[in-house]
Amino acid sequence: MDSHVKASLGRFFEDFRVGDTIRHAVPRTLGDGERALYHGLYPSRHAFNSSVAFARSCGLDGPLDNLLVFHTVFGSTVPDISLNAVANLGYAEGRWLVPVHPGETLAATSEVIGVKENSSGRTGVLWVRTAGWNERGDAVLSYVRWVMVRKRDADSPAPKPVVPELSESIRPQDLVVPQGRSFDGYDCGHAGEPHRWGDYEVGETIDHVDRVTIEEAEHMLATRLWQNTARVHFDATSREDGRRLIYGGHVISMARALSFNGLANAQMIVGLNAGSHVAPCFAGDTVCCWSEVL
Amino acid sequence: MDSHVKASLGRFFEDFRVGDTIRHAVPRTLGDGERALYHGLYPSRHAFNSSVAFARSCGLDGPLDNLLVFHTVFGSTVPDISLNAVANLGYAEGRWLVPVHPGETLAATSEVIGVKENSSGRTGVLWVRTAGWNERGDAVLSYVRWVMVRKRDADSPAPKPVVPELSESIRPQDLVVPQGRSFDGYDCGHAGEPHRWGDYEVGETIDHVDRVTIEEAEHMLATRLWQNTARVHFDATSREDGRRLIYGGHVISMARALSFNGLANAQMIVGLNAGSHVAPCFAGDTVCCWSEVL
Amino acid sequence: MDSHVKASLGRFFEDFRVGDTIRHAVPRTLGDGERALYHGLYPSRHAFNSSVAFARSCGLDGPLDNLLVFHTVFGSTVPDISLNAVANLGYAEGRWLVPVHPGETLAATSEVIGVKENSSGRTGVLWVRTAGWNERGDAVLSYVRWVMVRKRDADSPAPKPVVPELSESIRPQDLVVPQGRSFDGYDCGHAGEPHRWGDYEVGETIDHVDRVTIEEAEHMLATRLWQNTARVHFDATSREDGRRLIYGGHVISMARALSFNGLANAQMIVGLNAGSHVAPCFAGDTVCCWSEVL
Repeated sequence: MDSHVKASLGRFFEDFRVGDTIRHAVPRTLGDGERALYHGLYPSRHAFNSSVAFARSCGLDGPLDNLLVFHTVFGSTVPDISLNAVANLGYAEGRWLVPVHPGETLAATSEVIGVKENSSGRTGVLWVRTAGWNERGDAVLSYVRWVMVRKRDADSPAPKPVVPELSESIRPQDLVVPQGRSFDGYDCGHAGEPHRWGDYEVGETIDHVDRVTIEEAEHMLATRLWQNTARVHFDATSREDGRRLIYGGHVISMARALSFNGLANAQMIVGLNAGSHVAPCFAGDTVCCWSEVL
Repeated sequence: MDSHVKASLGRFFEDFRVGDTIRHAVPRTLGDGERALYHGLYPSRHAFNSSVAFARSCGLDGPLDNLLVFHTVFGSTVPDISLNAVANLGYAEGRWLVPVHPGETLAATSEVIGVKENSSGRTGVLWVRTAGWNERGDAVLSYVRWVMVRKRDADSPAPKPVVPELSESIRPQDLVVPQGRSFDGYDCGHAGEPHRWGDYEVGETIDHVDRVTIEEAEHMLATRLWQNTARVHFDATSREDGRRLIYGGHVISMARALSFNGLANAQMIVGLNAGSHVAPCFAGDTVCCWSEVL
Repeated sequence: MDSHVKASLGRFFEDFRVGDTIRHAVPRTLGDGERALYHGLYPSRHAFNSSVAFARSCGLDGPLDNLLVFHTVFGSTVPDISLNAVANLGYAEGRWLVPVHPGETLAATSEVIGVKENSSGRTGVLWVRTAGWNERGDAVLSYVRWVMVRKRDADSPAPKPVVPELSESIRPQDLVVPQGRSFDGYDCGHAGEPHRWGDYEVGETIDHVDRVTIEEAEHMLATRLWQNTARVHFDATSREDGRRLIYGGHVISMARALSFNGLANAQMIVGLNAGSHVAPCFAGDTVCCWSEVL
């Protein structure tokens, strides 16, 4: 009997059709524990997420870190979208729409918005627009990502190519900031820095100074927490070189957290215009980061 | 002054008498944090534990993972039962009786149900029936385990051997499923797989495909969380080879979590008929698993 | 453009003036997740913190571990006090004043109470009295610590030396024990040991037997959780020898947790008379501990 009858090996490039919407398993409740683990895994210090009291003083009810929401939504798409991915190519049009609080359950859906077979005939590029939803049916996050996915069979015919048109940047009027927020009583002392909106100028770069050397146990704890099941992050036997590739989102969260030093008042991420994983990261690597005001 | 007067070195084989009931320290409150850590430590995706909303749609109030309950009860027995164990030999008659929810406190008791000295005269086999209890006095879990325990003194007389008669398998009518559950609105899409009861047949095997390479930090975090104090899991100086033996329950949880891929709708563990730790596991090992329908 | 304009490199010895009070960023909400992580990171078994039910039976509402509170307060002082510290020299006059419960937010302040430049002219000793505060404005913890801090400029003039007079030990009448506690129904069986106040005598030493080998991932998870940003704990490139120095408080918590075996009924820490980090600790080291009744 074929012992793979029940277990899933994931979808291949041929399995995606433009216009299809995939409803991902498994919904995930985020709680106080995920909040704490996020603080253990990343040197996160932004006051909105560090202090429920601080957030309340700004009219918000202790929201979870925006990237914690991103990883949870992203992770739940992996078993359907990227188990057979060769590379995670990019992100666009990311918007955080509604804050998520401890105790809420998120689920995700992805719409296939583009497919284009590569000239090799062995892989193709897949574009999906993914949304995360809370229990009330509000979209909490939406983004486009594209990945290179293996074909099951190199001989299967190429689909008609569809390449979606994506914005280079989200229009300011399309960004959503949480309702009820108020910065009237904003406490710069507790937030950690005096620099406000008017203090930053286009072209300015900020070296965030701090560095972190990454461990296997840490990136695996994180990646499991987001229920990202891509084998390459966990299984030292899956690559020829015996190394476990670190989930790119782990590095994004590390950089965002380190950016506190210089961007302490950048309390919320409201949009993601672009992003690429330009080089792999492995345990033992030391991560540092800088920002440029665009 | 003997500096061991206050600190406990654990019980030896001579210290157990058939019929004795041991009330274990320390009770342990399980919360949202333990729930999150369980998801960080194991690639756990079963919807009943991943999503409080999903569990509620099935009439359950967001129960904690059955194995999280098992480890907590097991861990609290270690200081009394197995600090001087040479080997953890087996399990039988395990039944989960009442779901455990975040905020509840568990305590454990063990009844000594068998003792048999080994021919070497230096060790003996001990059988205990352990129960975990919530604050309301409900037994939440019950199981038998047997371990080989060192004697304090090889010259002490052998006790009269008592070997308990154990069921090879729990009778179906003795299994307990949580009250109030209802699968009327069960959502296979969100649960992750279409396979239901009728789709499995006796003799079928399922290769769960995924693999995890285990790290020292992870198994120690887990084993500490369950307050399992066996030195061999934490102290690299306790074995001649300088390796830390991984708590067998860590491997059980890893396998159960990986079994999602093929057994996603096996939402609850209701019984444990048998179990052996057939080989030691160390950091750096890569764990994979398969299931057979018996 | 100087890319360090926005990011902070921390204060140097010249930046501290006796009498100044520093209000530290960032407030931190401690929840169920931090409680669980504390149990994952340290083999903590004291019943007051392990079991909310046990604590309630003694009139307390499930307080967080005293050292969890200490680390949170300490960590929030690091970006202001000790980013440029050469050595953490000592502690005195530590008192826990009010219990902290999950859901509460702590903030910290430090008063500069002493400065003394070293003869080298390149560093100085700084004394601060730090307090942690809950949202209601109650001081929850107060302690003095002194550190050797680098000067920004060896040529800057030495401040007038001020060396505070510190108590060798806190007077018993100044120690604060939580209101509402009652040991009438204290359950030694569940607490784990029979030894009570009258069983300990001055001069007695207790070998706590158990040992833990420390991992990089564990001390970094812990140190991040307390938002301690000292680079030397995280960045393998910051020391010549490529090793990450373990936060001294990680070792303190490890020792306190291991001390359960022999001091199980020492449920709360109410004072800290002194403390020094007498040798560095690195991943791979195995920690054990003993106590002496003074």
